[in-house]
Amino acid sequence: MRCCVIGGAGFLGSHLVSALRSTGRDVLVIGRSDRDAVALPPGVAYLQGDIQNRVFIGGALQGVDELVDLAYSSVPKTSFENPVQDIVDNLPGSVALFDVASGLNLRKMVFVSSGGTVYGEALQLPVAETHPTNPISPYGITKLALEKYAQVYHRMRQLPVLCVRPSNPYGERQKPYVGQGFIATAMASMLSGQEIRVFGQQGTVRDYIYVEDVAQALVCALDQGLPGESYNIGSSIGRSNLEVLNEISRVALASGIQPKIMHVEPRSFDVAANILDVEKLRLLCGWQPKTGFAEGIARTWAWYGRNRGRP
Amino acid sequence: MRCCVIGGAGFLGSHLVSALRSTGRDVLVIGRSDRDAVALPPGVAYLQGDIQNRVFIGGALQGVDELVDLAYSSVPKTSFENPVQDIVDNLPGSVALFDVASGLNLRKMVFVSSGGTVYGEALQLPVAETHPTNPISPYGITKLALEKYAQVYHRMRQLPVLCVRPSNPYGERQKPYVGQGFIATAMASMLSGQEIRVFGQQGTVRDYIYVEDVAQALVCALDQGLPGESYNIGSSIGRSNLEVLNEISRVALASGIQPKIMHVEPRSFDVAANILDVEKLRLLCGWQPKTGFAEGIARTWAWYGRNRGRP
Repeated sequence: MRCCVIGGAGFLGSHLVSALRSTGRDVLVIGRSDRDAVALPPGVAYLQGDIQNRVFIGGALQGVDELVDLAYSSVPKTSFENPVQDIVDNLPGSVALFDVASGLNLRKMVFVSSGGTVYGEALQLPVAETHPTNPISPYGITKLALEKYAQVYHRMRQLPVLCVRPSNPYGERQKPYVGQGFIATAMASMLSGQEIRVFGQQGTVRDYIYVEDVAQALVCALDQGLPGESYNIGSSIGRSNLEVLNEISRVALASGIQPKIMHVEPRSFDVAANILDVEKLRLLCGWQPKTGFAEGIARTWAWYGRNRGRP
Repeated sequence: MRCCVIGGAGFLGSHLVSALRSTGRDVLVIGRSDRDAVALPPGVAYLQGDIQNRVFIGGALQGVDELVDLAYSSVPKTSFENPVQDIVDNLPGSVALFDVASGLNLRKMVFVSSGGTVYGEALQLPVAETHPTNPISPYGITKLALEKYAQVYHRMRQLPVLCVRPSNPYGERQKPYVGQGFIATAMASMLSGQEIRVFGQQGTVRDYIYVEDVAQALVCALDQGLPGESYNIGSSIGRSNLEVLNEISRVALASGIQPKIMHVEPRSFDVAANILDVEKLRLLCGWQPKTGFAEGIARTWAWYGRNRGRP
């Protein structure tokens, strides 16, 4: 079984690649950067190229059985700064990919959407997949639009594609200071003696999930997910920024580091709370997160410590 | 009060311009074509230009109080043929327009979406605004995405924008043979002796509404619609293609024309039935359609007859 992961050299992608390798799959990673190849585990093929280039992507996908698309050029914060760029960089390429993929004989395709942004303000918590989708960021809109394209390509072209909606993954190798990834930024800030900004008194409440658990959920979705469907991936536990910082402080203090916290005004583009209901995926394949928060934080802290806050 | 209608030289736009003029508004139309200007009523200003050009659009909108965006380069059929083109031609320009409009001091903006495509397969009929939105065409996806951008610009930039979702308008000046507008194509076909294709035994069931009633609904939405909201516009009556053809045949036979009907296989990208619930708009401003179907068909037939099927 040959599985291609587009964006597989990134944070989530690299953990997914390891999880796929451990199931015995051949793995091909497609990425934009030449340098990405170095971070991959042994035995993983790497191709550099632009998925908007149909000739390249059509050739690269020959002989591929499974496809996971988690390449994305924006995060919610940058999508506000330039919503048109977010459209131009993400929609045409991913739609062209659905189109090319529809002409192949794929066993399964997974599009990685965003459980943290497609729903918008939660009407009730935790949020199930049937909750209305009213994103409050341009990033959430393009992710949602791509889910709709996935449904259309499934319906019209029989593409065996499904969508997953991870909440807030954290763990080793997540980049700090890129406008998402609170835990990565908090740890890197602590290690370099910088203040950590919390928006409001408690900060926002998010559903943090250890990245290896997300990778396992993606493998489950690839194995058993039903085409045309969407599946939440999360811990189903809400934690405020302050609760997260308390947990990180336990390990930081043990390393002799005292976090500095600065409270600033809440941002209008943050939803107050996001917690995902993951019953649908659990019922499908028995998946549930295995890594407790304290353990995940300890592992992540150890990694940032080894990498001195500069992954 | 100065109202700008982008796409105001098209079918729906030209009727809207007349309705706006009759309320005493100054009207400015922006369109892409040089030739469009000829079809406009006296006293309406016309500017030719590309809304993707921010300098042009920023200048054109100076002094404008109200804005209606109904420019669109695709219809559902063409969006299937080239979904990437549908994205590139429609999303960046309309999002840039929301962005520019957010910096003006507008009283109200209306984005014209699509009640016939944003919902997808109806779970129940008639379809209210709260119905899930699962478009089955790329066209429906880009319309839905633009509604979501409207909501984000309303929330983040206080743009006083609302969305309307018309069902299937018909009436004078609608273009036949462009992949939407069954009534226009049927009448033009009858007048030129061509067969009319019906997909399946009865064809699809649609909510046809006379274009002048849609124009009145747009004026109501502009006057009283609440920013951030979406409003259906329709007749709330479902008619199959065959019922529509029976109604047209009554007027056609009186002109000595016998329609020729050809039944072909149903198309997978048509939803079986779409009928809109329009209580929300009626409760807002008392609007309801005034023109009965027989009367609307008679007026439209008379116009096509005068124009010999070639508007």
